[in-house]
This record gives sequence, C-alpha cells and structure tokens, in this order.
Amino acid sequence: MRSEFQFINDIKKRFLLDRVGDDCAVVPKNRASDLLITADLLIENVDFRLEWATPEQIGHKALAVSLSDIAAMGGTPTFGLVSIGVPQELWDSGFPDGFYQGWHELAARFDVEMIGGDTSKSPDRVVIDSIVLGDVPVGRAILRSGARPGDAIFVSGSLGGAAGGLTLLENGKSLSDSTGSESYLIERQLRPFPQVELGKRLMKLAIATSMIDLSDGLSSDLAHICEASGVGAAVIEEVLPIDQNLSEHFGGDESFEFALHGGEDFELLFTVPEDRSSELKELPVTRVGTITTYAGKVDLIRGDAKTELEPKGYRHF
Amino acid sequence: MRSEFQFINDIKKRFLLDRVGDDCAVVPKNRASDLLITADLLIENVDFRLEWATPEQIGHKALAVSLSDIAAMGGTPTFGLVSIGVPQELWDSGFPDGFYQGWHELAARFDVEMIGGDTSKSPDRVVIDSIVLGDVPVGRAILRSGARPGDAIFVSGSLGGAAGGLTLLENGKSLSDSTGSESYLIERQLRPFPQVELGKRLMKLAIATSMIDLSDGLSSDLAHICEASGVGAAVIEEVLPIDQNLSEHFGGDESFEFALHGGEDFELLFTVPEDRSSELKELPVTRVGTITTYAGKVDLIRGDAKTELEPKGYRHF
Repeated sequence: MRSEFQFINDIKKRFLLDRVGDDCAVVPKNRASDLLITADLLIENVDFRLEWATPEQIGHKALAVSLSDIAAMGGTPTFGLVSIGVPQELWDSGFPDGFYQGWHELAARFDVEMIGGDTSKSPDRVVIDSIVLGDVPVGRAILRSGARPGDAIFVSGSLGGAAGGLTLLENGKSLSDSTGSESYLIERQLRPFPQVELGKRLMKLAIATSMIDLSDGLSSDLAHICEASGVGAAVIEEVLPIDQNLSEHFGGDESFEFALHGGEDFELLFTVPEDRSSELKELPVTRVGTITTYAGKVDLIRGDAKTELEPKGYRHF
Repeated sequence: MRSEFQFINDIKKRFLLDRVGDDCAVVPKNRASDLLITADLLIENVDFRLEWATPEQIGHKALAVSLSDIAAMGGTPTFGLVSIGVPQELWDSGFPDGFYQGWHELAARFDVEMIGGDTSKSPDRVVIDSIVLGDVPVGRAILRSGARPGDAIFVSGSLGGAAGGLTLLENGKSLSDSTGSESYLIERQLRPFPQVELGKRLMKLAIATSMIDLSDGLSSDLAHICEASGVGAAVIEEVLPIDQNLSEHFGGDESFEFALHGGEDFELLFTVPEDRSSELKELPVTRVGTITTYAGKVDLIRGDAKTELEPKGYRHF
C-alpha cells in the first residue's frame, strides 16, 4: 500500500504541483519577501490525547508545529489561522477557550496575529488544522533540496526527548505529577518549542544549503533531505546529541532509538558547506555527519562499521 | 450556551483580533494587492456524507466553498491548500485520488494552483480543511461592514436550491438516479458553483458597499451584514428569486423556507448605493430589499404587512 510520501509524490506528478512537498509552500509576495504558508492537521487520539494534555497545551502545540515549519524555511512567522472541529460537550465545557488561550500565549512570543479560521461541530473527536503564514527574503527560502555532497549536517538541541516523553505518557505518567527529567521529557512532547529564532539566525548568516524540521524523526527527515537533494548522508553515531534526560528512564539502546527515529522534537536539521561549518560555533547546534554522493542512502557510522539507516520515523500511512 | 458567532465575537474582543470575522482575512501583500485567505473545515456526517457524494464531488465542494469566500470579497483566487484526514480503509480504497481529482477539475477553471496542505490518518471519519488564497486590489476588499441605510440589497442567482437538494438526499434520492429538476437540485447541494466571476465583476464596477456569500442561509447571512454594518434591512418577500426547480418537489411554504433559511446556495448577497443599482441590469442578480437604519433588525415585507425575520440559517453551535 502507498505511504503518504509516495501519495504526495504521485499527486505532485499527476497534477504538476511544483510547490508541494517542502515544510512550507513558497509563493511570491512583494519585492522584499516571499510568502510562506504551512498547514498541519492534528486529530484527537492520533496526534494528541485529551487525557494527557490540557486545552491550553493542545493550543500551544497546534501553533508550535506550524511555527516549526516556518522556522525550517528560515522564515519569520506573521499570521495564523485555526480551523477547529469540536464535539458538543467539549464546546459546552469551554475547550475552545483554553485552546485559544494556549495558542495566543505562544503566538505572543513570536508576534503572530490570528487572522481567521473556521469553527465546526465534530461528532466525536477534536480536529484541528493549524495554518501559519510567514515571510522570507525573496528567493532565499531554505528548501530541502539544496544539500550537496561534502556539506556538513547539523541538528539543533537534543534528540529523542519528545519520543521519551510520549513513552512516559503511554506508561501512565502525567505532567502534573512529574518533576525533574520526567517533567522535562513530557514537556518536550506536550509543549514543543519551535526553533524560529535559530531559523532566522541561519537565514541571516546565509549559510544553510538545506533544512527541515525534525517532526517525523531524524532517520525519516534526513531521508527527506537526501531524496529532495538527490544525495546521501553519513551520520556519526557517537556524536548524536541524545537527550541526556532520557538516561534516567530508559536504557541506552532505547534512548538511541528515540534519537534516531522518534518524532516531534521539532529541532532543525540542516546542511552547510564544509568550509563554513566553523561559523556555527556559537550556536546550540551539533554536527552529526556529512552529505555523500550515494543518492537516497543514509549510512550510520559506528567506529569503523557502517550500517544503512532505514527511515523508521513516524508516518500516518 | 454560546453560539459559534458569539464565541468568535468573544475571542475577537479577548485577543484583540481585528482581522477575524469576514469571509476572508485580508492582510497586506504588495503595492497592487492585498492577500486574502480563507479556511473551511468539512467533517464527514456533518458537512458531507460518503453515501451521497463521490470522492470527486467532495473534492469539488471542499474547494468551491472556499472559492466562494474569495468571491465574497471581490477577490481573485490564486492558490489552494488541503489538509485531509482519512481512515485507513478509505486511504486503501483510493478516496484521496478521487478527492484530489475533483478538487483539481474545479481549480483548473479558476487557474488555482495547489501548493500544500497536510495528510493525516483519521480514526473513523474523513475531515477536510480547505484553504484558499486570493488577491484583491489594495484597500478594496468588499467587507461585510460597509452597508449604509438606503443601499439596495441584491442576491445573485436563485435561492433555496441547495437546501431542496439536501432534503431530497435525506429522503433517499440520489444524483445518479435523478433527472431534470431533481438532478438539478441535488447538484446544487453536492456540486455548488462559486460566484468568482460575479465577484470580480462587482470589484471592477467598484459598486458593492458590502458583500457576503450565502453559506448559512439568507436570513443568517443578511443578519451578519447588518450586524457588521450597524444597520437593518427590509426584504420584499414577493421578489425573492426562489429556485423554480423546487416547485416540482416541495410546497410553496417549504420552498419559501428553503429560500429564506436554507444554506449552501453559495450565491452572493451584496449591497450597492441606491443611485447605482441600475448599473447591475445586465447581471444575473435580483434586488431583494433595502438597507434601513434599524440596527440589527431584518424586516420581511409582505404587501403592507411587516414581520421580523429571525436568523434561522445553519449554525454548528
């Protein structure tokens, strides 16, 4: 059966959709800026659970995932819309009020204004479509397709924390009853923080040849860059910035799997020319590998051994 | 309990959202144009039924309702995005292929390009968020708020057909087994045609003081114009362009109710200065009344009698 990525490739070909397939669509706006736009659909019990998250946290996350897409193009977010379908009992109990509160608290940090959306009744599940617009200097949106052999591969922050938090929630932990590293990991899952400032910084440096946000997981998202760029990648296992909070709750192998394949860290994964990689010294980023000529192939390097890294990140279909 | 309209007013006040509440949001684009954007959420068994409509028809309608919002601002549609959540069995049976086919067939008529969206698994129902962008000359988007006492009120086309078609479907009729007026009415419901060309014509004439599309129903949508403009309205019952196809299937009272309160005709409802109303002679529009000073009050005039027309169109909450 077709994966969602195959399906998107199919309709791109069938309807000649040149602009589909990156973190955001890019369309002309004015002499200074192109317009970015992204939409993210979140469905109850697929993308979030009401037992795990408050309405405010769900509002925060709905906006955060879209802001992360703007960040992944090096853009500046400007406006947002939310379409929301809500069952009657949640409408009556004030779910939308908390949701919009959480959305706006995050929006205020990035000066994003809500300009529209839609409200609908849903028979039995909350559904949310989060839409965010942004600006990027004309012709300079950082696409997935610009990675070149020899480029250095970087990730921001740490990896696997959100997947660890999800596992803790699945094991019955909750944010309100947690402290320390447990609370931190669950927050990574429920209240992701989009790397908008880092994306803008990279844009200012004009240094990234390709970029994507880590929503599906490192193995899948790096495969997306490789496919779009027609290149391969070699990732050095021992330098992966595995989230240190995982070690208190999970074994080394499990933490490593979270870092490789766990989704929703919403960090940035990007490539820069080798000879400019030293310019990133002051930034909270880690070099994890190098782009290769082996199109579509991602190698994981452990000492002298090399294994192929299959994309095992999250996918709906 | 709060209606959805009250809720939207509440969050507009609470978060100071000036741009929320018209058919589209309007934001600055460049020296020539403002950017329009609209989002419409459609949920299976609330907004459409798989027993009644093919995937192609659902794709057509998802785009049509958003194009209608662009038309209601006098805008020209440019780009579209679709977020779609689909249960596994419908994914496997090719629902998305038919859906995108129907979407693109309508899009081609208006030169609208798909640029993005999202694909997600939905546990048990199809959910669709349709997003369309458009252009409108700077500062000239036709809002709901510009109607002035004395303005003439017009509607395009005919009224009540889509509601009649819905009732036929609810009574077990189907498009494939229908002919003549029955087929016509069901088509009005399943394959609405957005009045984009008329909206652009009105923009060119620079004649409309306010406009909205008839999605909820005449009584509700006229109330929206009156509320936004701080005016009232008087509607002449005998001139209402009730869809003539209704008479073969419904009594006069029922047809009249469809025309007053039935939603989804996706015609345009707009106001023009009295002294310019003759300029619309060549267009497929009907004058149905006059804007009054009685803020928030819509009167229905029958001969010498006057009754208040309560908004009874569609609402989710």
